[in-house]
Amino acid sequence: MELNKYIVDIAKKAKEASRILQAIDSETKDKALNLMEAGLLKKKESILKSNKIDIKGARSKGLSPAMLDRLTLNEKRIAAMAEGLKTVASLKDEIGVITGMVKRPNGLWIGKMRVPIGVIAIIYESRPNVTCDCAGLTLKSGNSVILKGGSEAINSNRAICEVLKEAAEKAGFPDGTINLIESTDRKSVGILLKQASYIDLVMPRGGEGLINEVVSESRIPVIKHYKGICHVYVDEYADLNMAHKISVNAKLERPGVCNAMETLLVHKDAAARFLPVIIKELKDNGVEIRGCGKTRRIVKDVKPAKEDDWSTEYLDLILSVKVVSSLDEAIGHIARYGSMHSDAIVTENYNNAMEFLKRVDSACVYLNASTRFTDGGEFGMGAEIGISTDKLHARGPMGLRELTSYKYIIFGNGQIRK
Amino acid sequence: MELNKYIVDIAKKAKEASRILQAIDSETKDKALNLMEAGLLKKKESILKSNKIDIKGARSKGLSPAMLDRLTLNEKRIAAMAEGLKTVASLKDEIGVITGMVKRPNGLWIGKMRVPIGVIAIIYESRPNVTCDCAGLTLKSGNSVILKGGSEAINSNRAICEVLKEAAEKAGFPDGTINLIESTDRKSVGILLKQASYIDLVMPRGGEGLINEVVSESRIPVIKHYKGICHVYVDEYADLNMAHKISVNAKLERPGVCNAMETLLVHKDAAARFLPVIIKELKDNGVEIRGCGKTRRIVKDVKPAKEDDWSTEYLDLILSVKVVSSLDEAIGHIARYGSMHSDAIVTENYNNAMEFLKRVDSACVYLNASTRFTDGGEFGMGAEIGISTDKLHARGPMGLRELTSYKYIIFGNGQIRK
Repeated sequence: MELNKYIVDIAKKAKEASRILQAIDSETKDKALNLMEAGLLKKKESILKSNKIDIKGARSKGLSPAMLDRLTLNEKRIAAMAEGLKTVASLKDEIGVITGMVKRPNGLWIGKMRVPIGVIAIIYESRPNVTCDCAGLTLKSGNSVILKGGSEAINSNRAICEVLKEAAEKAGFPDGTINLIESTDRKSVGILLKQASYIDLVMPRGGEGLINEVVSESRIPVIKHYKGICHVYVDEYADLNMAHKISVNAKLERPGVCNAMETLLVHKDAAARFLPVIIKELKDNGVEIRGCGKTRRIVKDVKPAKEDDWSTEYLDLILSVKVVSSLDEAIGHIARYGSMHSDAIVTENYNNAMEFLKRVDSACVYLNASTRFTDGGEFGMGAEIGISTDKLHARGPMGLRELTSYKYIIFGNGQIRK
Repeated sequence: MELNKYIVDIAKKAKEASRILQAIDSETKDKALNLMEAGLLKKKESILKSNKIDIKGARSKGLSPAMLDRLTLNEKRIAAMAEGLKTVASLKDEIGVITGMVKRPNGLWIGKMRVPIGVIAIIYESRPNVTCDCAGLTLKSGNSVILKGGSEAINSNRAICEVLKEAAEKAGFPDGTINLIESTDRKSVGILLKQASYIDLVMPRGGEGLINEVVSESRIPVIKHYKGICHVYVDEYADLNMAHKISVNAKLERPGVCNAMETLLVHKDAAARFLPVIIKELKDNGVEIRGCGKTRRIVKDVKPAKEDDWSTEYLDLILSVKVVSSLDEAIGHIARYGSMHSDAIVTENYNNAMEFLKRVDSACVYLNASTRFTDGGEFGMGAEIGISTDKLHARGPMGLRELTSYKYIIFGNGQIRK
């Protein structure tokens, strides 16, 4: 009951703040972001001190080295967080922009005004920089934010939030603009997900378990990034040098991220020429190959791929490889096993390129380029809050624009409906 | 278990169909819509016969006259359904339209292509015309649809769907384009709402009970129309003749619909002049007035408004009236009790108009016009599938465009990420 009241009070306060935030001008927002940046740099010692407490706790709980690395802050990482806030300050503020104004026959002018979404809850794990990135982007887009980080990072998140809140309030933002759920009680997420009258959007960021929990419990709209099972399809008409470069980049440049390739699809008429070379190169770089029957007939010493492999996001130096008989089969495979994230075709054939473009139903469909470009920065957004694999509201990289909604505005001079 | 398989099979079939639908050209869509229109007119006798069975059943169950009216079909209503399909055929098909193409420094071209959402489930009550309207709009926007109407309308819905499905298939659409859940088992809705791997969007249309049930059970994104608690605020600087005309129109033109006024807010300095005249006019037209203390001091024989009144959607000849001390109080009242549907200010004061426009967080914000214009047709959309009171994906009237999503398309010539 105590916990319930604690969460509801935060949600209420965030809602009240959001009503003030929607009318704050861009100058004030940028002032806040600049103060937040300066604050982080000034208080870095105390933030690092708090982070050390979290690391010590995580070590004693036996967290994996990868988790520990994600949790760890240092001067360079704090500087990167501060730099991120500066970038967000430099981005164009679209709140209040009016578009599509039309005049109706009865003289009404009807258009759309871009507005903040309202209150956004972010539920995430480990990395304390998410606290800062999300606070910056939500503030610039006129939203108040409720941050619920992992219990392992609570001291770091508290120290960062304190700095950010103080800066925002100094710039004139209301208390309630940036909110951190400090309770580490696991029930707090469930309570948060029921506050549909105060919270407008929930964005979970983390592993499959967290995402599933949020989707099944939430009464609030959720935008999620589920899995990134990205494909590169090497067509029979591919420039095989290009296909090689793209496949190596999509798998090796950063294997642990969502836009890395997990499955390579190769047309049967290109397989004999392409597979031996690319598999050798990938193996030489430490990649384990799991191939279909046809792949294994062409290249020796390849492990057999199991049915599960086609729908697995390895996030690691593992690649599943399948030989397909046609473009249709490739598109069908992507529809069946993919996660609608990022998929690429390599081809010099115009019709095949266009068919792939039209029929592959992923957030990002690539012709002759690496899937690794799916990223707010690479797309020119300046900063991203995440990548959506949903189909509603926002798909693919989500930047400032995707943290906004619109309202219809109607200018009349006494019109009534007959 | 049997029921589970029945629902899952329909959802799967709809998903498969949606993959084909996304690439069907506009001509084929319009051909289908025209055949659907002709089919409805040709088969009207058998549709009316099925409808009679539903009406008989509803009577024996003691449905209210209003419900019976909503359920009833006649020649005129079937003609209106057919006419609606013709209108949808005449609307522009935006699927495949590419916008916002930019060239990145590395030579990549990145843009957005408009695509169907995929599979849309509509859960609704009573009115059989919803079956036809939704099937037409979803087909034109390239989506397959799963229709779950009320059990009281099952014979009518089955007869209508049969005609529509036959026409769509004749035009070349796959089986699975239009799907009707024929089971009247209440459990079927719950099963449907769990098919997140096949269904992309759920739109409930009906009373508060239905909406709440869908929101709390669904694992699939929901866009809903909740309540329409619409306000007209008469400012101290209002043209009172205009305010009178707008108030009468917003309350009386069609009191049973979501964009009708439920609460009239009047600035204290306009109240003594405005309230006696408007209240007399509304009372003369059968409206019951429930007023705040100040209202009742100005006009006699007005019932007191209770706290509940401010958040009640009457959909009837009842109006709550409140005198406010300031524009701020009016905006605060709307934020607290409104449903973010449609709200209007009547004023000749520029600053007050702009403040209202900026700060009222509703789907449709009106200056000097009746709230009754919130409607797809009035907004120039040609047809609407509903009105959203949500903030994600779509707000206000939803037409063809709102039944679509986008995907990023990226044209490269061998780009890799460094």
